[in-house]
Amino acid sequence: MDLATIIGIILSFGLVISAIAFKGSILIFVSIESLLIVLGGTIGATLVNYPLSRVFGVFSVVKHTFFSKVDSPTDIIDQFMEYANRARREGILSLEPIIKEIDDVYLRKGLQLTVDGLEPQAIQEILEKEVIYLESRHETGAEILSALGAYAPAMGMIGTAIGLILMLQTMEDPSTIGPAMAVALITTFYGAILANLVFLPMAGKLKQRSKDEIVVKEMVMEGILAISKGENPRIIEEKLTSFLPPKDRRKET
Amino acid sequence: MDLATIIGIILSFGLVISAIAFKGSILIFVSIESLLIVLGGTIGATLVNYPLSRVFGVFSVVKHTFFSKVDSPTDIIDQFMEYANRARREGILSLEPIIKEIDDVYLRKGLQLTVDGLEPQAIQEILEKEVIYLESRHETGAEILSALGAYAPAMGMIGTAIGLILMLQTMEDPSTIGPAMAVALITTFYGAILANLVFLPMAGKLKQRSKDEIVVKEMVMEGILAISKGENPRIIEEKLTSFLPPKDRRKET
Amino acid sequence: MDLATIIGIILSFGLVISAIAFKGSILIFVSIESLLIVLGGTIGATLVNYPLSRVFGVFSVVKHTFFSKVDSPTDIIDQFMEYANRARREGILSLEPIIKEIDDVYLRKGLQLTVDGLEPQAIQEILEKEVIYLESRHETGAEILSALGAYAPAMGMIGTAIGLILMLQTMEDPSTIGPAMAVALITTFYGAILANLVFLPMAGKLKQRSKDEIVVKEMVMEGILAISKGENPRIIEEKLTSFLPPKDRRKET
Amino acid sequence: MDLATIIGIILSFGLVISAIAFKGSILIFVSIESLLIVLGGTIGATLVNYPLSRVFGVFSVVKHTFFSKVDSPTDIIDQFMEYANRARREGILSLEPIIKEIDDVYLRKGLQLTVDGLEPQAIQEILEKEVIYLESRHETGAEILSALGAYAPAMGMIGTAIGLILMLQTMEDPSTIGPAMAVALITTFYGAILANLVFLPMAGKLKQRSKDEIVVKEMVMEGILAISKGENPRIIEEKLTSFLPPKDRRKET
Amino acid sequence: MDLATIIGIILSFGLVISAIAFKGSILIFVSIESLLIVLGGTIGATLVNYPLSRVFGVFSVVKHTFFSKVDSPTDIIDQFMEYANRARREGILSLEPIIKEIDDVYLRKGLQLTVDGLEPQAIQEILEKEVIYLESRHETGAEILSALGAYAPAMGMIGTAIGLILMLQTMEDPSTIGPAMAVALITTFYGAILANLVFLPMAGKLKQRSKDEIVVKEMVMEGILAISKGENPRIIEEKLTSFLPPKDRRKET
Repeated sequence: MDLATIIGIILSFGLVISAIAFKGSILIFVSIESLLIVLGGTIGATLVNYPLSRVFGVFSVVKHTFFSKVDSPTDIIDQFMEYANRARREGILSLEPIIKEIDDVYLRKGLQLTVDGLEPQAIQEILEKEVIYLESRHETGAEILSALGAYAPAMGMIGTAIGLILMLQTMEDPSTIGPAMAVALITTFYGAILANLVFLPMAGKLKQRSKDEIVVKEMVMEGILAISKGENPRIIEEKLTSFLPPKDRRKET
Repeated sequence: MDLATIIGIILSFGLVISAIAFKGSILIFVSIESLLIVLGGTIGATLVNYPLSRVFGVFSVVKHTFFSKVDSPTDIIDQFMEYANRARREGILSLEPIIKEIDDVYLRKGLQLTVDGLEPQAIQEILEKEVIYLESRHETGAEILSALGAYAPAMGMIGTAIGLILMLQTMEDPSTIGPAMAVALITTFYGAILANLVFLPMAGKLKQRSKDEIVVKEMVMEGILAISKGENPRIIEEKLTSFLPPKDRRKET
Repeated sequence: MDLATIIGIILSFGLVISAIAFKGSILIFVSIESLLIVLGGTIGATLVNYPLSRVFGVFSVVKHTFFSKVDSPTDIIDQFMEYANRARREGILSLEPIIKEIDDVYLRKGLQLTVDGLEPQAIQEILEKEVIYLESRHETGAEILSALGAYAPAMGMIGTAIGLILMLQTMEDPSTIGPAMAVALITTFYGAILANLVFLPMAGKLKQRSKDEIVVKEMVMEGILAISKGENPRIIEEKLTSFLPPKDRRKET
Repeated sequence: MDLATIIGIILSFGLVISAIAFKGSILIFVSIESLLIVLGGTIGATLVNYPLSRVFGVFSVVKHTFFSKVDSPTDIIDQFMEYANRARREGILSLEPIIKEIDDVYLRKGLQLTVDGLEPQAIQEILEKEVIYLESRHETGAEILSALGAYAPAMGMIGTAIGLILMLQTMEDPSTIGPAMAVALITTFYGAILANLVFLPMAGKLKQRSKDEIVVKEMVMEGILAISKGENPRIIEEKLTSFLPPKDRRKET
Repeated sequence: MDLATIIGIILSFGLVISAIAFKGSILIFVSIESLLIVLGGTIGATLVNYPLSRVFGVFSVVKHTFFSKVDSPTDIIDQFMEYANRARREGILSLEPIIKEIDDVYLRKGLQLTVDGLEPQAIQEILEKEVIYLESRHETGAEILSALGAYAPAMGMIGTAIGLILMLQTMEDPSTIGPAMAVALITTFYGAILANLVFLPMAGKLKQRSKDEIVVKEMVMEGILAISKGENPRIIEEKLTSFLPPKDRRKET
């Protein structure tokens, strides 16, 4: 899992738990039934909102984006410089043996189409479609986490409303009001914690990761198209360098 | 009805009802007049917001999207490989007898126009227009459900305001405040439940279903255009495969 | 006025009034001064927000969109089939006498430009501009109603704040708190009712009506352009049919 | 200042003040320190949000858009008919002496470029850039007013929080709670009034005015391009008329 | 740091502190543990939301945008007039020695590509890509500050919920309710202050600065492309002047 996620979760939950322990007892805030109604209701609403396979798929998308490493953009530039120089010197077909050793499906597909002699525009159409649908799958993952983050506080408030209505309906002894309201508020607390410390930040991280992956795919597409057009390696380098933040760029001479 | 919707509704409503039954009596939360003002007012506002035919049409759109099955993308690829190979071997007119047996209106229209010898660009214009207006009809359905989801909590709060004003205006015996406020809050509770467990998640499911259907339509369009341009079956396969998530793709060789 | 608007308003207001009458007296909720501050303040803010002529113009836009009938799309297809066949058989100039009898300004303008022999692209530019500015005028109408719907609850809360501040400042006899708060809440109630049962739903209906009118204009434009390009009547029919939902289409043979 | 703004401000403030005077004393709502914290804090946050020059620039943008008159679209059409006829009869260079007398910088620049014989596309690029950056400057003005409208209620609530915390911390005599809460609520009241009756409606008016000015600029651009392409005056009239609402159009013959 | 930011922060914090000091003691509002839970929790959530390197990178982006000066647009026009005249008189290669002295990486890269004789369209593609990715990096900075501004009030409310639940659960002596609630509200106060006086306005300033920088980059791109197309210096001046607000333009002759 990426480091920031671990640090962030430990930091925020640590502080919330310390704040509670400092002033009172953690036990007051532990309520299985409150957790059940908030988390269960949230998942229920999300299942109505998204197809079953996609809700479960969110775990794999999350896992994939949190654990898999995105290729380093500078490595990609080096790689393409090598391909471009080779294609220049020995012809485009000389890339054929290299293709088989490439792990990345997207890069392999693009180069294969190039070696097959497809028109650059046809290659572009195919690769762009890949990126568009990859993006849309990532978006669905982030949307599901955002939906969880939107339903959680709503379920928290529904839980609190239930508690308040029951309390108000049956209140006789004023001294029981305080504890009853405290219990009613715990679902609101759970809803806010789940939304703001878990679901919404995870949705945000997913979007960031997806953005980074898309940039890498666009660099790869740019490189493949440049090779398929037989462009000058120096120009290819200039084009790919444009994707990098200045501090990651090689000293330009 | 799709499985996730059933599971989701049972899960969320089950938990809400259990939470109530666990701490008090379900009867406290049953109020026909509260339901009438929240649901009736919500439907009233939605009728002012949308034409009558479209509000009723939402039932058929919902039913259609929940029950009809979207074609499997891999089946579509197989189908198009067959069409493309046949058109290659025996000429485009050899597709004519096949067209009559196709159920799907969109695919049949597209292939017919291709066999009729229309320019690819004209075919694209017609098919794109179909998709745009299909999308816009689906959107209206999702918008109506979203509107129901927006008016429901508002009506809930209006109901609570009515209850509070009446209570405050006539309060004499402090012991009646609790139960009166409990009753006033029930419309808020209904509004929140209807919006967050029914209308908004259903609007979301409709959007998801529509997105899936649009992707299928775009695959079909891509395939028809490729055939009408007489493209190589292997390229057609590459193009259509780009729409699929990697795990659904055939092992690429 | 369109039927759904009438039914919707009767339904929602009827239920609100019944709910009040059922539990107390309608008179408690009647307050001319509360209505004055909410409605007057809302209109005041809207006048600062929009030019005078456009705020008054909203009445005519509303009236026009609620009462005028949008042409039936199937009638438009019939009409264009007739024009297209005539233009095919007797030449484009044979449409000249028909043009004079057309009521719709947009259709007449488009056909006149076609008969005048303008290039299809020039016709398209002119007709598209018409649609863009028609759309923008409709949008302003819907925006003004949305602004009324946004300022109304704000004015309701300002009214309640005034009531609360006065009550808190001068409270001496605890028994007067209840009725004073009830009075203070009435502006909030008015703001919520005006926004959620009147302004926002009417803004929504306006947007729907405008959308329908724009679709009709786009069909007409498509038809005119097709005629001006001398396209085959069957293709024109295919093109125009794409705008219709499947259930409104003629049985395709 | 435009009439609607004056009427709107008098109407809304008049009603708010009457409502207060009717039920209590205006003096209760006058608090220099509350105004200082709300207005000062709002301006402070806005200064952090926008560059100094632009915050002060908002006064000139506001003044300019409220007082300067937008050219009448029908006058512009007349003007262009004259230019177009003249250019047709006596050649494009015959517009040279007229240009010097034109006040409007935009129109003058466009005609000068036309007379200089620039390609229509180059003229279009230059004029479009002018419009894009004019629009962006107007947007910044509206955004600053919207920011003031967003920070004002936030500062109001911060002021109320300060008042509540101080009151709760030091409360001893229950009879002082009421007046202390009343004072605390006054900042919320100020924030709501400033946002909903001043800043947000003025931001809206600015957007409207800007939209109108942009339409006029687009008409002028359309006209200049048509002249530079040597188009037929009747076509130019048709093109420019498309920008007008039907009721402002000359009777078409 | 830019002046408006300093003035704005001093103004708003000064007023908040004065308001507190005026009515009570500043000490009541100082609570290290409240600050810890609000600020720490906010940073924790933001770390889950964004990659570690980018959260820390926000400091450098903020510093860079607050301190670095954006080039004056009028200076840029002067510079380009010089380049354009030189390129006209002595040929494009005469720019070579000038390029080495240019500090700005973007301008240097663009001119170098021009001197190298790349096609204008290829130069445009490369320079546009630079701008797009620069914009996206700036956006990430502003988004992180906006996220801090969104999580801060949420953490404030979570802190208040914790305080309320503890207070309600254990309340025995009614006289302790006031101070306990005051303490609970302090986290809400901190969340509102941090969001509305620090994070959100700083996010806004970042967006403004980025917008200004992008405009300058677009001017530079426009100028480079015009030179690479060998355009007339006067036309180049007209093109670049379109980016300026009228008041910054030289008197046009």
